[in-house]
Amino acid sequence: MTDFNKAIVLLSGGLDSTTTLAIAKKLGFECYALSFDYGQRHITELLAANHIAKSYGTKEHKVIKIDLGQIGGSALTDDSIDIPKSPSQGIPITYVPARNTLFLSYALAWAEVLNANDIFIGVNAIDYSGYPDCRPKYISAYENLATLATKAGVEGAKFKIHAPLIDLSKADIIKKGIALNVDYAKTVSCYQADEECYACGVCDSCRFRNEGFKDANIKDPTLYKNQIK
Amino acid sequence: MTDFNKAIVLLSGGLDSTTTLAIAKKLGFECYALSFDYGQRHITELLAANHIAKSYGTKEHKVIKIDLGQIGGSALTDDSIDIPKSPSQGIPITYVPARNTLFLSYALAWAEVLNANDIFIGVNAIDYSGYPDCRPKYISAYENLATLATKAGVEGAKFKIHAPLIDLSKADIIKKGIALNVDYAKTVSCYQADEECYACGVCDSCRFRNEGFKDANIKDPTLYKNQIK
Repeated sequence: MTDFNKAIVLLSGGLDSTTTLAIAKKLGFECYALSFDYGQRHITELLAANHIAKSYGTKEHKVIKIDLGQIGGSALTDDSIDIPKSPSQGIPITYVPARNTLFLSYALAWAEVLNANDIFIGVNAIDYSGYPDCRPKYISAYENLATLATKAGVEGAKFKIHAPLIDLSKADIIKKGIALNVDYAKTVSCYQADEECYACGVCDSCRFRNEGFKDANIKDPTLYKNQIK
Repeated sequence: MTDFNKAIVLLSGGLDSTTTLAIAKKLGFECYALSFDYGQRHITELLAANHIAKSYGTKEHKVIKIDLGQIGGSALTDDSIDIPKSPSQGIPITYVPARNTLFLSYALAWAEVLNANDIFIGVNAIDYSGYPDCRPKYISAYENLATLATKAGVEGAKFKIHAPLIDLSKADIIKKGIALNVDYAKTVSCYQADEECYACGVCDSCRFRNEGFKDANIKDPTLYKNQIK
Protein backbone atom coordinates (compact mmCIF):
# COMPACT_ATOMS: atom_id res chain seq x y z
CA MET A 1 0.00 0.00 0.00
CA THR A 2 1.55 3.28 -1.12
CA ASP A 3 0.50 6.81 -0.32
CA PHE A 4 0.80 8.51 -3.67
CA ASN A 5 0.58 12.02 -2.33
CA LYS A 6 3.60 11.95 -0.01
CA ALA A 7 6.89 13.33 -1.31
CA ILE A 8 10.36 13.78 0.11
CA VAL A 9 11.82 17.16 -0.87
CA LEU A 10 15.57 17.69 -0.59
CA LEU A 11 15.87 21.13 0.96
CA SER A 12 19.21 22.90 1.35
CA GLY A 13 17.69 26.27 2.16
CA GLY A 14 18.92 27.72 -1.13
CA LEU A 15 17.10 29.32 -4.04
CA ASP A 16 16.73 26.15 -6.12
CA SER A 17 15.53 23.75 -3.43
CA THR A 18 13.08 26.31 -2.03
CA THR A 19 11.58 26.80 -5.51
CA THR A 20 11.39 23.00 -5.82
CA LEU A 21 9.51 22.77 -2.51
CA ALA A 22 7.08 25.46 -3.71
CA ILE A 23 6.49 23.42 -6.90
CA ALA A 24 5.93 20.14 -4.99
CA LYS A 25 3.48 21.91 -2.70
CA LYS A 26 1.66 23.46 -5.68
CA LEU A 27 1.35 19.97 -7.25
CA GLY A 28 -0.53 18.87 -4.14
CA PHE A 29 2.06 16.64 -2.47
CA GLU A 30 2.24 16.26 1.29
CA CYS A 31 5.87 17.31 1.69
CA TYR A 32 8.57 15.87 3.96
CA ALA A 33 11.66 18.08 3.90
CA LEU A 34 15.11 16.53 4.17
CA SER A 35 18.29 18.53 4.83
CA PHE A 36 21.87 17.49 5.52
CA ASP A 37 24.48 18.74 7.89
CA TYR A 38 27.46 17.53 5.89
CA GLY A 39 30.27 19.62 7.26
CA GLN A 40 29.36 22.76 5.33
CA ARG A 41 31.48 25.63 6.56
CA HIS A 42 28.55 27.32 8.27
CA ILE A 43 25.03 26.47 9.38
CA THR A 44 23.26 29.52 7.98
CA GLU A 45 21.70 27.51 5.17
CA LEU A 46 20.38 24.90 7.63
CA LEU A 47 18.73 27.64 9.67
CA ALA A 48 17.21 28.95 6.44
CA ALA A 49 16.04 25.41 5.54
CA ASN A 50 14.37 25.07 8.91
CA HIS A 51 12.55 28.37 8.55
CA ILE A 52 11.47 27.53 4.98
CA ALA A 53 10.28 24.01 5.90
CA LYS A 54 8.07 25.52 8.58
CA SER A 55 6.74 28.32 6.41
CA TYR A 56 5.68 25.80 3.74
CA GLY A 57 3.89 23.65 6.29
CA THR A 58 5.94 20.52 5.57
CA LYS A 59 4.71 17.49 7.51
CA GLU A 60 8.19 16.90 8.95
CA HIS A 61 11.71 18.28 8.51
CA LYS A 62 14.66 16.01 9.18
CA VAL A 63 18.26 17.19 9.28
CA ILE A 64 20.62 14.26 8.89
CA LYS A 65 24.24 14.61 9.89
CA ILE A 66 26.54 12.98 7.37
CA ASP A 67 30.25 12.77 7.61
CA LEU A 68 31.56 13.85 4.21
CA GLY A 69 34.57 15.49 5.83
CA GLN A 70 35.98 12.01 6.49
CA ILE A 71 35.77 11.30 2.75
CA GLY A 72 37.34 14.66 1.74
CA GLY A 73 38.03 15.87 -1.77
CA SER A 74 35.91 19.05 -1.89
CA ALA A 75 36.35 22.70 -0.94
CA LEU A 76 32.91 22.55 0.69
CA THR A 77 33.84 19.91 3.24
CA ASP A 78 37.63 19.99 3.37
CA ASP A 79 39.15 22.93 5.24
CA SER A 80 42.48 22.49 3.47
CA ILE A 81 40.94 23.48 0.11
CA ASP A 82 39.99 27.15 -0.45
CA ILE A 83 36.71 28.15 -2.09
CA PRO A 84 37.65 29.81 -5.41
CA LYS A 85 36.96 33.53 -5.85
CA SER A 86 36.88 33.46 -9.66
CA PRO A 87 34.67 31.45 -12.06
CA SER A 88 35.86 27.86 -12.41
CA GLN A 89 36.25 25.81 -15.58
CA GLY A 90 35.01 22.20 -15.87
CA ILE A 91 34.04 20.36 -12.70
CA PRO A 92 34.46 22.85 -9.85
CA ILE A 93 36.42 22.17 -6.67
CA THR A 94 33.20 22.81 -4.74
CA TYR A 95 31.89 19.53 -6.23
CA VAL A 96 31.29 17.09 -3.37
CA PRO A 97 31.98 13.46 -4.41
CA ALA A 98 28.76 11.51 -4.86
CA ARG A 99 26.80 14.17 -2.99
CA ASN A 100 23.52 13.91 -4.87
CA THR A 101 23.80 10.10 -4.84
CA LEU A 102 24.13 10.17 -1.06
CA PHE A 103 21.35 12.72 -0.61
CA LEU A 104 18.98 10.75 -2.86
CA SER A 105 19.89 7.53 -1.04
CA TYR A 106 18.87 8.98 2.33
CA ALA A 107 15.71 10.31 0.69
CA LEU A 108 15.05 6.82 -0.68
CA ALA A 109 15.48 5.26 2.76
CA TRP A 110 12.99 7.71 4.26
CA ALA A 111 10.63 7.24 1.30
CA GLU A 112 10.60 3.49 1.99
CA VAL A 113 9.68 4.04 5.61
CA LEU A 114 6.95 6.56 4.71
CA ASN A 115 5.60 4.50 1.79
CA ALA A 116 6.30 7.41 -0.54
CA ASN A 117 7.33 6.97 -4.19
CA ASP A 118 8.15 10.58 -5.00
CA ILE A 119 11.36 12.48 -4.34
CA PHE A 120 12.02 16.09 -5.39
CA ILE A 121 15.51 17.46 -6.03
CA GLY A 122 16.36 20.97 -7.21
CA VAL A 123 19.20 20.22 -9.63
CA ASN A 124 19.35 22.52 -12.65
CA ALA A 125 20.90 23.32 -16.00
CA ILE A 126 23.56 25.69 -14.67
CA ASP A 127 24.79 23.11 -12.19
CA TYR A 128 25.00 20.26 -14.63
CA SER A 129 27.49 22.08 -16.82
CA GLY A 130 29.94 21.18 -14.08
CA TYR A 131 28.48 18.50 -11.81
CA PRO A 132 27.97 15.04 -13.34
CA ASP A 133 25.24 14.17 -10.84
CA CYS A 134 22.95 16.97 -12.06
CA ARG A 135 22.35 15.58 -15.57
CA PRO A 136 18.96 14.25 -16.76
CA LYS A 137 20.45 10.83 -17.55
CA TYR A 138 21.79 10.62 -14.01
CA ILE A 139 18.31 11.33 -12.65
CA SER A 140 16.82 8.60 -14.89
CA ALA A 141 19.48 6.13 -13.74
CA TYR A 142 18.62 6.91 -10.11
CA GLU A 143 14.89 6.35 -10.75
CA ASN A 144 15.71 2.95 -12.21
CA LEU A 145 17.94 2.09 -9.26
CA ALA A 146 15.34 3.23 -6.70
CA THR A 147 12.69 1.03 -8.23
CA LEU A 148 15.02 -2.02 -8.13
CA ALA A 149 16.33 -1.24 -4.65
CA THR A 150 13.09 -1.23 -2.71
CA LYS A 151 10.27 -3.32 -1.31
CA ALA A 152 7.81 -1.05 -3.16
CA GLY A 153 9.68 -1.67 -6.42
CA VAL A 154 9.52 -5.47 -5.89
CA GLU A 155 5.78 -5.05 -5.42
CA GLY A 156 5.44 -3.15 -8.72
CA ALA A 157 5.68 0.52 -7.70
CA LYS A 158 7.84 2.93 -9.69
CA PHE A 159 9.86 5.63 -8.01
CA LYS A 160 9.80 9.09 -9.52
CA ILE A 161 12.69 11.47 -8.97
CA HIS A 162 11.22 14.86 -9.80
CA ALA A 163 13.79 17.40 -10.97
CA PRO A 164 11.46 20.22 -12.06
CA LEU A 165 14.27 22.77 -12.53
CA ILE A 166 16.57 20.57 -14.55
CA ASP A 167 16.12 22.36 -17.87
CA LEU A 168 15.72 25.87 -16.48
CA SER A 169 18.15 28.77 -16.35
CA LYS A 170 18.57 30.58 -13.02
CA ALA A 171 16.39 33.43 -14.38
CA ASP A 172 13.61 30.98 -15.30
CA ILE A 173 13.78 29.36 -11.86
CA ILE A 174 13.45 32.77 -10.21
CA LYS A 175 10.50 33.74 -12.45
CA LYS A 176 8.79 30.43 -11.61
CA GLY A 177 9.40 30.97 -7.89
CA ILE A 178 8.16 34.55 -7.94
CA ALA A 179 4.95 33.30 -9.63
CA LEU A 180 4.59 30.89 -6.69
CA ASN A 181 5.26 33.67 -4.16
CA VAL A 182 8.64 32.37 -3.01
CA ASP A 183 10.35 34.86 -0.69
CA TYR A 184 13.94 34.68 -1.94
CA ALA A 185 15.21 37.00 0.79
CA LYS A 186 14.79 34.01 3.12
CA THR A 187 16.92 31.64 1.01
CA VAL A 188 20.69 31.21 1.26
CA SER A 189 22.78 30.14 -1.76
CA CYS A 190 26.23 31.34 -0.74
CA TYR A 191 28.90 28.76 0.11
CA GLN A 192 30.15 30.97 2.94
CA ALA A 193 27.24 33.11 4.12
CA ASP A 194 27.66 34.44 7.63
CA GLU A 195 25.27 34.00 10.53
CA GLU A 196 23.35 37.17 9.68
CA CYS A 197 22.68 35.69 6.22
CA TYR A 198 25.08 38.03 4.45
CA ALA A 199 26.34 36.30 1.30
CA CYS A 200 29.98 36.70 0.30
CA GLY A 201 29.29 38.10 -3.18
CA VAL A 202 32.39 36.48 -4.66
CA CYS A 203 31.75 32.71 -4.98
CA ASP A 204 30.25 30.99 -8.06
CA SER A 205 27.00 30.47 -6.20
CA CYS A 206 26.56 34.20 -5.42
CA ARG A 207 27.48 35.11 -8.99
CA PHE A 208 24.97 32.68 -10.57
CA ARG A 209 22.28 33.85 -8.19
CA ASN A 210 22.83 37.54 -8.85
CA GLU A 211 23.03 37.05 -12.63
CA GLY A 212 19.77 35.09 -12.43
CA PHE A 213 17.96 38.01 -10.83
CA LYS A 214 19.45 40.42 -13.39
CA ASP A 215 18.42 38.19 -16.31
CA ALA A 216 14.93 37.84 -14.85
CA ASN A 217 14.67 41.63 -14.40
CA ILE A 218 13.83 41.12 -10.74
CA LYS A 219 15.54 42.97 -7.90
CA ASP A 220 17.95 40.64 -6.06
CA PRO A 221 16.88 40.71 -2.39
CA THR A 222 20.14 39.04 -1.21
CA LEU A 223 22.36 40.89 1.25
CA TYR A 224 25.94 40.76 -0.09
CA LYS A 225 29.00 41.61 1.98
CA ASN A 226 30.97 42.44 -1.16
CA GLN A 227 29.62 44.19 -4.22
CA ILE A 228 29.22 41.60 -7.02
CA LYS A 229 31.52 42.40 -9.95
CA MET B 1 44.04 9.38 -14.42
CA THR B 2 42.68 6.33 -12.68
CA ASP B 3 44.46 3.81 -10.52
CA PHE B 4 43.01 0.56 -11.74
CA ASN B 5 44.32 -1.53 -8.88
CA LYS B 6 42.61 0.29 -6.01
CA ALA B 7 39.34 -1.09 -4.70
CA ILE B 8 36.92 -0.13 -1.95
CA VAL B 9 35.69 -3.22 -0.08
CA LEU B 10 32.54 -2.93 2.04
CA LEU B 11 33.45 -4.78 5.23
CA SER B 12 30.90 -5.49 7.95
CA GLY B 13 33.09 -7.97 9.79
CA GLY B 14 30.80 -10.86 8.86
CA LEU B 15 31.40 -14.08 6.97
CA ASP B 16 30.38 -12.75 3.54
CA SER B 17 32.25 -9.46 3.53
CA THR B 18 35.40 -11.08 4.90
CA THR B 19 35.30 -13.68 2.12
CA THR B 20 34.79 -10.82 -0.36
CA LEU B 21 37.85 -9.02 1.00
CA ALA B 22 39.90 -12.22 0.65
CA ILE B 23 38.74 -12.50 -2.99
CA ALA B 24 39.57 -8.84 -3.78
CA LYS B 25 43.00 -9.31 -2.25
CA LYS B 26 43.56 -12.53 -4.22
CA LEU B 27 42.65 -10.65 -7.42
CA GLY B 28 45.52 -8.26 -6.69
CA PHE B 29 43.61 -5.12 -5.69
CA GLU B 30 45.02 -2.64 -3.22
CA CYS B 31 42.11 -2.74 -0.77
CA TYR B 32 40.47 0.13 1.15
CA ALA B 33 38.01 -1.23 3.70
CA LEU B 34 34.82 0.67 4.51
CA SER B 35 32.58 -0.10 7.49
CA PHE B 36 29.56 1.64 8.92
CA ASP B 37 28.44 2.38 12.41
CA TYR B 38 24.73 2.65 11.62
CA GLY B 39 23.14 2.15 14.99
CA GLN B 40 23.59 -1.63 15.05
CA ARG B 41 22.65 -2.95 18.45
CA HIS B 42 26.24 -3.74 19.35
CA ILE B 43 29.72 -2.92 18.11
CA THR B 44 31.15 -6.45 18.13
CA GLU B 45 31.01 -6.67 14.35
CA LEU B 46 32.87 -3.34 13.99
CA LEU B 47 35.63 -4.63 16.27
CA ALA B 48 35.76 -7.76 14.10
CA ALA B 49 35.90 -5.58 10.94
CA ASN B 50 38.80 -3.62 12.38
CA HIS B 51 40.73 -6.76 13.22
CA ILE B 52 40.04 -8.29 9.80
CA ALA B 53 40.98 -5.08 7.90
CA LYS B 54 44.33 -5.09 9.70
CA SER B 55 44.98 -8.78 9.19
CA TYR B 56 44.40 -8.44 5.44
CA GLY B 57 46.79 -5.48 5.22
CA THR B 58 44.19 -3.08 3.82
CA LYS B 59 45.69 0.29 2.90
CA GLU B 60 43.12 2.10 5.05
CA HIS B 61 39.99 1.23 7.06
CA LYS B 62 37.32 3.89 7.51
CA VAL B 63 34.32 3.50 9.81
CA ILE B 64 31.63 6.00 8.88
CA LYS B 65 28.89 6.81 11.35
CA ILE B 66 25.53 7.01 9.64
CA ASP B 67 22.31 7.87 11.30
CA LEU B 68 19.82 5.25 10.12
CA GLY B 69 18.08 5.30 13.49
CA GLN B 70 16.62 8.68 12.56
CA ILE B 71 15.09 7.08 9.45
CA GLY B 72 13.76 4.01 11.34
CA GLY B 73 11.78 1.12 9.89
CA SER B 74 14.08 -1.82 10.72
CA ALA B 75 14.64 -4.15 13.66
CA LEU B 76 18.38 -3.61 13.22
CA THR B 77 18.27 0.13 13.89
CA ASP B 78 14.97 0.68 15.70
CA ASP B 79 14.86 -0.42 19.34
CA SER B 80 11.06 -0.61 19.31
CA ILE B 81 11.14 -3.55 16.84
CA ASP B 82 12.28 -6.97 18.14
CA ILE B 83 14.63 -9.19 16.15
CA PRO B 84 12.61 -12.29 15.19
CA LYS B 85 13.59 -15.65 16.72
CA SER B 86 12.01 -17.79 13.99
CA PRO B 87 12.61 -17.86 10.21
CA SER B 88 10.86 -14.99 8.43
CA GLN B 89 8.84 -15.08 5.19
CA GLY B 90 9.30 -12.50 2.40
CA ILE B 91 11.27 -9.34 3.12
CA PRO B 92 12.49 -9.65 6.73
CA ILE B 93 12.02 -7.01 9.40
CA THR B 94 15.81 -6.88 9.71
CA TYR B 95 15.85 -5.28 6.23
CA VAL B 96 17.26 -1.76 6.58
CA PRO B 97 15.67 0.66 4.07
CA ALA B 98 18.05 1.52 1.24
CA ARG B 99 21.00 0.16 3.21
CA ASN B 100 23.07 -1.17 0.34
CA THR B 101 22.28 1.95 -1.70
CA LEU B 102 23.62 4.12 1.12
CA PHE B 103 26.66 1.91 1.68
CA LEU B 104 27.52 1.86 -2.03
CA SER B 105 27.03 5.63 -2.20
CA TYR B 106 29.59 6.25 0.53
CA ALA B 107 31.90 3.78 -1.22
CA LEU B 108 31.39 5.70 -4.46
CA ALA B 109 32.26 9.01 -2.77
CA TRP B 110 35.48 7.53 -1.41
CA ALA B 111 36.24 5.87 -4.75
CA GLU B 112 36.02 9.27 -6.44
CA VAL B 113 38.48 10.78 -3.99
CA LEU B 114 40.90 7.82 -4.36
CA ASN B 115 40.52 7.60 -8.16
CA ALA B 116 39.33 4.03 -7.80
CA ASN B 117 36.76 2.45 -10.15
CA ASP B 118 36.21 -0.80 -8.30
CA ILE B 119 33.91 -1.48 -5.37
CA PHE B 120 33.40 -4.90 -3.75
CA ILE B 121 30.22 -5.86 -1.90
CA GLY B 122 29.45 -9.25 -0.34
CA VAL B 123 25.77 -9.62 -1.22
CA ASN B 124 24.66 -13.18 -1.95
CA ALA B 125 21.92 -15.51 -3.13
CA ILE B 126 20.50 -16.27 0.32
CA ASP B 127 20.11 -12.59 1.10
CA TYR B 128 18.45 -11.67 -2.14
CA SER B 129 15.59 -14.04 -1.56
CA GLY B 130 14.42 -11.39 0.87
CA TYR B 131 16.30 -8.14 0.28
CA PRO B 132 15.60 -6.29 -3.00
CA ASP B 133 18.98 -4.55 -2.95
CA CYS B 134 20.90 -7.85 -3.17
CA ARG B 135 19.73 -8.85 -6.67
CA PRO B 136 22.04 -8.93 -9.72
CA LYS B 137 19.87 -6.39 -11.58
CA TYR B 138 20.17 -4.00 -8.65
CA ILE B 139 23.98 -4.31 -8.81
CA SER B 140 23.94 -3.61 -12.58
CA ALA B 141 21.71 -0.58 -12.04
CA TYR B 142 24.15 0.74 -9.44
CA GLU B 143 27.11 0.31 -11.80
CA ASN B 144 25.26 2.32 -14.42
CA LEU B 145 24.42 5.02 -11.89
CA ALA B 146 28.00 5.20 -10.59
CA THR B 147 29.37 5.70 -14.07
CA LEU B 148 26.91 8.56 -14.74
CA ALA B 149 27.34 10.13 -11.30
CA THR B 150 31.05 10.78 -11.32
CA LYS B 151 33.87 12.85 -12.77
CA ALA B 152 35.60 9.60 -13.83
CA GLY B 153 32.44 8.49 -15.64
CA VAL B 154 32.26 11.84 -17.50
CA GLU B 155 35.84 11.22 -18.56
CA GLY B 156 35.00 7.75 -19.91
CA ALA B 157 35.77 5.40 -17.01
CA LYS B 158 33.34 2.64 -16.06
CA PHE B 159 32.67 1.71 -12.47
CA LYS B 160 32.57 -1.94 -11.58
CA ILE B 161 30.57 -3.13 -8.59
CA HIS B 162 32.02 -6.56 -7.86
CA ALA B 163 29.60 -8.91 -6.12
CA PRO B 164 31.61 -12.13 -6.27
CA LEU B 165 29.29 -14.05 -3.91
CA ILE B 166 26.04 -13.10 -5.59
CA ASP B 167 25.27 -16.52 -7.07
CA LEU B 168 26.75 -18.60 -4.25
CA SER B 169 25.07 -20.51 -1.46
CA LYS B 170 26.39 -20.01 2.07
CA ALA B 171 28.16 -23.39 1.81
CA ASP B 172 29.88 -22.36 -1.44
CA ILE B 173 30.98 -19.07 0.12
CA ILE B 174 32.48 -20.92 3.07
CA LYS B 175 34.28 -23.40 0.79
CA LYS B 176 35.68 -20.51 -1.26
CA GLY B 177 36.81 -18.72 1.91
CA ILE B 178 38.43 -21.82 3.36
CA ALA B 179 40.36 -22.25 0.09
CA LEU B 180 41.61 -18.68 0.61
CA ASN B 181 42.51 -19.38 4.26
CA VAL B 182 39.81 -17.18 5.78
CA ASP B 183 39.66 -17.60 9.56
CA TYR B 184 35.89 -17.66 10.13
CA ALA B 185 36.28 -17.79 13.91
CA LYS B 186 37.22 -14.10 13.64
CA THR B 187 34.08 -13.08 11.74
CA VAL B 188 30.77 -12.04 13.30
CA SER B 189 27.46 -12.61 11.50
CA CYS B 190 24.99 -12.50 14.37
CA TYR B 191 22.60 -9.55 14.67
CA GLN B 192 23.04 -9.52 18.43
CA ALA B 193 26.46 -10.98 19.21
CA ASP B 194 27.80 -9.97 22.60
CA GLU B 195 31.12 -8.34 23.34
CA GLU B 196 32.90 -11.66 23.74
CA CYS B 197 31.80 -12.54 20.18
CA TYR B 198 29.22 -15.09 21.35
CA ALA B 199 26.51 -15.31 18.70
CA CYS B 200 22.87 -15.69 19.80
CA GLY B 201 22.21 -18.91 17.88
CA VAL B 202 18.56 -18.01 17.25
CA CYS B 203 18.44 -15.23 14.61
CA ASP B 204 18.20 -15.82 10.82
CA SER B 205 21.80 -14.81 10.41
CA CYS B 206 23.08 -17.43 12.91
CA ARG B 207 20.87 -20.07 11.33
CA PHE B 208 22.06 -19.40 7.76
CA ARG B 209 25.66 -19.36 8.91
CA ASN B 210 25.43 -22.63 10.80
CA GLU B 211 23.54 -24.37 7.97
CA GLY B 212 26.24 -23.14 5.57
CA PHE B 213 28.97 -24.85 7.58
CA LYS B 214 26.89 -28.04 7.82
CA ASP B 215 26.23 -28.07 4.06
CA ALA B 216 29.93 -27.47 3.37
CA ASN B 217 30.90 -30.29 5.74
CA ILE B 218 33.13 -27.92 7.66
CA LYS B 219 33.10 -27.53 11.43
CA ASP B 220 31.42 -24.25 12.42
CA PRO B 221 33.96 -22.35 14.57
CA THR B 222 31.34 -19.88 15.83
CA LEU B 223 30.68 -19.62 19.56
CA TYR B 224 26.91 -19.76 20.11
CA LYS B 225 25.19 -18.81 23.36
CA ASN B 226 22.20 -21.01 22.49
CA GLN B 227 22.34 -24.37 20.77
CA ILE B 228 21.12 -23.95 17.17
CA LYS B 229 17.92 -25.93 16.58
